Amino acid sequence: MDIFKRPEREQAAAANGSEPWLRVVPLGGLGEIGKNMMVLETANDLVVVDCGLMFPEEEMLGVDLVIPDITYLHENSHKLRGIFITHGHEDHTGALPYVLRELQTRVYCTRLTRGLIAVKLKEHRVLNEDELLTVETGEVIQAGTDFQVEFFSVAHSIPDAAGLAIRTPLGTVIHTGDFKLDHTPVMGKGTDLPRLAELGREGVLLLCSDSTYAELPGYTPSEQVVGEALDRIISQAPGRVIVTTFASLIARVHQVIDAAVNHNRRVFITGRSMVDNVNIAMELGYLKGPASGFLKVDDLRELPPEKIVVISTGSQGEPTSALARMSNGDHQHIQIMHGDTVIMSSSPVPGNEALVYRVVDNLFRLGAGVFYNRISNVHVHGHASQEELKVVFNLVRPRHFVPIHGEYRHLALHARLAQTMGVPPDNIFILQDGDALEFRPEGASLAGKVTCDWVYVDGLGVGDVDHVVLRDRKHLATDGILAIIIAVEQRTGRIVGRPDVVSRGFVDVEESEALLEETRQRVAQSLDGATDHAAEWGVVKTTVKDAVADFLYQKTRRRPMILPVVVEV
Amino acid sequence: MDIFKRPEREQAAAANGSEPWLRVVPLGGLGEIGKNMMVLETANDLVVVDCGLMFPEEEMLGVDLVIPDITYLHENSHKLRGIFITHGHEDHTGALPYVLRELQTRVYCTRLTRGLIAVKLKEHRVLNEDELLTVETGEVIQAGTDFQVEFFSVAHSIPDAAGLAIRTPLGTVIHTGDFKLDHTPVMGKGTDLPRLAELGREGVLLLCSDSTYAELPGYTPSEQVVGEALDRIISQAPGRVIVTTFASLIARVHQVIDAAVNHNRRVFITGRSMVDNVNIAMELGYLKGPASGFLKVDDLRELPPEKIVVISTGSQGEPTSALARMSNGDHQHIQIMHGDTVIMSSSPVPGNEALVYRVVDNLFRLGAGVFYNRISNVHVHGHASQEELKVVFNLVRPRHFVPIHGEYRHLALHARLAQTMGVPPDNIFILQDGDALEFRPEGASLAGKVTCDWVYVDGLGVGDVDHVVLRDRKHLATDGILAIIIAVEQRTGRIVGRPDVVSRGFVDVEESEALLEETRQRVAQSLDGATDHAAEWGVVKTTVKDAVADFLYQKTRRRPMILPVVVEV
Repeated sequence: MDIFKRPEREQAAAANGSEPWLRVVPLGGLGEIGKNMMVLETANDLVVVDCGLMFPEEEMLGVDLVIPDITYLHENSHKLRGIFITHGHEDHTGALPYVLRELQTRVYCTRLTRGLIAVKLKEHRVLNEDELLTVETGEVIQAGTDFQVEFFSVAHSIPDAAGLAIRTPLGTVIHTGDFKLDHTPVMGKGTDLPRLAELGREGVLLLCSDSTYAELPGYTPSEQVVGEALDRIISQAPGRVIVTTFASLIARVHQVIDAAVNHNRRVFITGRSMVDNVNIAMELGYLKGPASGFLKVDDLRELPPEKIVVISTGSQGEPTSALARMSNGDHQHIQIMHGDTVIMSSSPVPGNEALVYRVVDNLFRLGAGVFYNRISNVHVHGHASQEELKVVFNLVRPRHFVPIHGEYRHLALHARLAQTMGVPPDNIFILQDGDALEFRPEGASLAGKVTCDWVYVDGLGVGDVDHVVLRDRKHLATDGILAIIIAVEQRTGRIVGRPDVVSRGFVDVEESEALLEETRQRVAQSLDGATDHAAEWGVVKTTVKDAVADFLYQKTRRRPMILPVVVEV
Repeated sequence: MDIFKRPEREQAAAANGSEPWLRVVPLGGLGEIGKNMMVLETANDLVVVDCGLMFPEEEMLGVDLVIPDITYLHENSHKLRGIFITHGHEDHTGALPYVLRELQTRVYCTRLTRGLIAVKLKEHRVLNEDELLTVETGEVIQAGTDFQVEFFSVAHSIPDAAGLAIRTPLGTVIHTGDFKLDHTPVMGKGTDLPRLAELGREGVLLLCSDSTYAELPGYTPSEQVVGEALDRIISQAPGRVIVTTFASLIARVHQVIDAAVNHNRRVFITGRSMVDNVNIAMELGYLKGPASGFLKVDDLRELPPEKIVVISTGSQGEPTSALARMSNGDHQHIQIMHGDTVIMSSSPVPGNEALVYRVVDNLFRLGAGVFYNRISNVHVHGHASQEELKVVFNLVRPRHFVPIHGEYRHLALHARLAQTMGVPPDNIFILQDGDALEFRPEGASLAGKVTCDWVYVDGLGVGDVDHVVLRDRKHLATDGILAIIIAVEQRTGRIVGRPDVVSRGFVDVEESEALLEETRQRVAQSLDGATDHAAEWGVVKTTVKDAVADFLYQKTRRRPMILPVVVEV
């Protein structure tokens, strides 16, 4: 729909409800990995699926997080009937603290997801227990008049993950969330294929399906493969075993505990998010600790190494994590030694490779044996590969298809796969964040773009870092800064004293004294006669800046940021 | 030759008042990927193997290149008998322009390697034709009295790659260079296993073998696999085919040309380094262009798309490369359109993933079909996997082993592999850059560390960017800078006018006027009474800096670099 072109039509439709429409608008996660958020909207109601954050890309210097742009939700907040969260990973939940500060609405999710979200909202002081609601799979939530949302179970790398079947006036929309098939999951119900088959039989207007691993042929192996590998490694380890994984990967933690108990080892948990998640999972009954309980720090010192398994944070090499500290000889309780075995039961999230492998290298240096994804089956990921995606197409047989969750190439490959599975090419839409796809009884079409920028969170600031700030940071990062300070007598406009230059991040200041002195002379030269134009300091600044930039480039082939400052005294 | 079996020589040495010794010192490439350089030294002579550069890691902000620290070569330059280059890749040759500017010595290498090096040395104006010498495989170079260096052919991702067998007074050292086995190479002689077997039979003191892919089980596939994939894709492509690969991967270029000719397509070459390398390879007879010659720009416009193959730079997503420009709609002659097929016949070098996949995404966006390493067999890499490494151990049966070329984990895994192949654990040394390993008739042992820092090249500066500059760049990159300018009357030491603040890369200046104004007030407050201590401007600066830093952190949770400048007027 494009209200700019069809105002009368919109009014008519709104007035008599005779021409229903449905708009599907991704506000995040399409064209990138992370900050997943999708809007479904009719004339009467609007629901949101997921509310995630994204970790900054390399060029987003100094940025802590990226969250979706919710301008469109603000504009339509009167229709907002709730946010439906598919599972408890931060790329699906992490923007909630920011969004709920600005918009009041209900949040629906499964039980473990609720537990994880509640902790975060409490930290941010925006938890409203009454509006954070637990939903069982199979349950149907009426959202306004136009939407009925049903949660169905899916297998993923966190328990209690769900997909959504959303009834709309124009037909059923299926949103898979993040999923894989895993017919023998270690925990939970796996992906509810029979329900997908039923929905498919009834007819599905639109399938939105996870594209994260659409590049990969074949099947994603079951968690059980990892369980066997963990058990084997722990059974053969000569000394301590230290396992790290994603703190949310409760099924993995469960497998490690099982293997430890199996081989008469006791378990010690370290790292804040691991301790927190294990506690929540145990409270909510998703995890049973070892019968003998977890090890305390004192026991850790007393038990022989071959009786110990440590479960630790640090699977992404995060510098402050427990494992990274161990790898730097910096952990309060655990010093890595010869005979230790470390299992990285995870794979590096794109962008984290350097951090992860630095930790692996340092662990090897300290004499540990390290098992990691490139050399051992100690991890399987949580997303469907091509053959699994095909199973979903075969069951759901959607009339339309929108690939979700992925960089553009993942979406494009998933779209190609949809074609091979018989979805008509004209009914496949590769959307990117902000693209509005509109369904009318006569069919689907693109209907323009809604506001959808990237919103950077940096410290306490949300949205106050823009592309100018990032461009400056990039410039500063590359060649540093050289500030030129020119003092001017306010009354006469005459330059007072000698201009000063100060640099940071440009050259070794002590070794480059001569260069900086010469720079000072260049400044003075370029200011010659400037007092005649005292009123035009803008012009003078530019002249000085250009002269210095040219001089320094010629001397060093570098382009530091030149910051001329005129001080009136 | 084995000194332990030749007592006469030992006696001779003893008679001279000293027993023979051999020192092996890696100056680069052990503990990182790149800047490969290794020293072999006796009491009389010193030879160097390779002289490479490394591309900067993420945290080396603004750095162009990293080169080895050659302090040790300076200290021993009187013994330097030559630099032996194994092959023409920049991580083995790229530091030559910098090293030859400081040290005069001969450089020995094979023919294509010489061609590639000569171009670079000419660009840097340090080419001395007489000292850049071509060596045939099988030839033995006498280097001083103590070394005889023999080049033997190896398969790698560039023609004319070699390993070195270096006879020393204490026995033979084999340095594999970069290699894989590839029994059916597309070009060149492959790895000379019979020669390795002979050397092994004679007895080998030390094997230094390529660890880059020691993580990978099995065999690295032959280049032929790629040839078949390229031929199939080109035969089926509906329109233009654009292939990118490493410009030095001449065998790949050769295969693309073959496939093009096979399917009646003509070939256009674009991108400076690709054009240069193709020219050198043709001049030296390593590449035969198509019989009809390469396409000119004008022909490119006239031929139908299904008659065209383009070979382009940009396999690493380099922003200024031909393919990156095509992906941005920015290439002078080639606009990507529906029906185009792009083949990325390469894999991203670690650290380049984001750049490469951005190009892939943009090509998909423009409607091209893209084949890349994750979805198709369009690339094999140039290094031996575990089973190949084992073949070398089996043939060479070295008495000692030093894994070379790799991050620490690669070296550690290769060391483990050496043990399984029967090298005694005490004879395996995991060295890192600067570690000196010393051989005496009675055995080998570590003998301390030589000076071996990282030397950063930034623009024209070599070594003038140090950790202080990098730390400042990191700081600037994260939170930007805030300069505080305080004018002081020279005569009286009194503050004149109102302090000014200027920021870059910190906050959106227009939206944060209030914050900056408040900062100005804080500066003024913290200066209250400062005129009483006019002599101690250092103290005042620190006070202002701390006050402003605290204030800004409290307000923003950011820590911009605070730069207080006092101007005397």
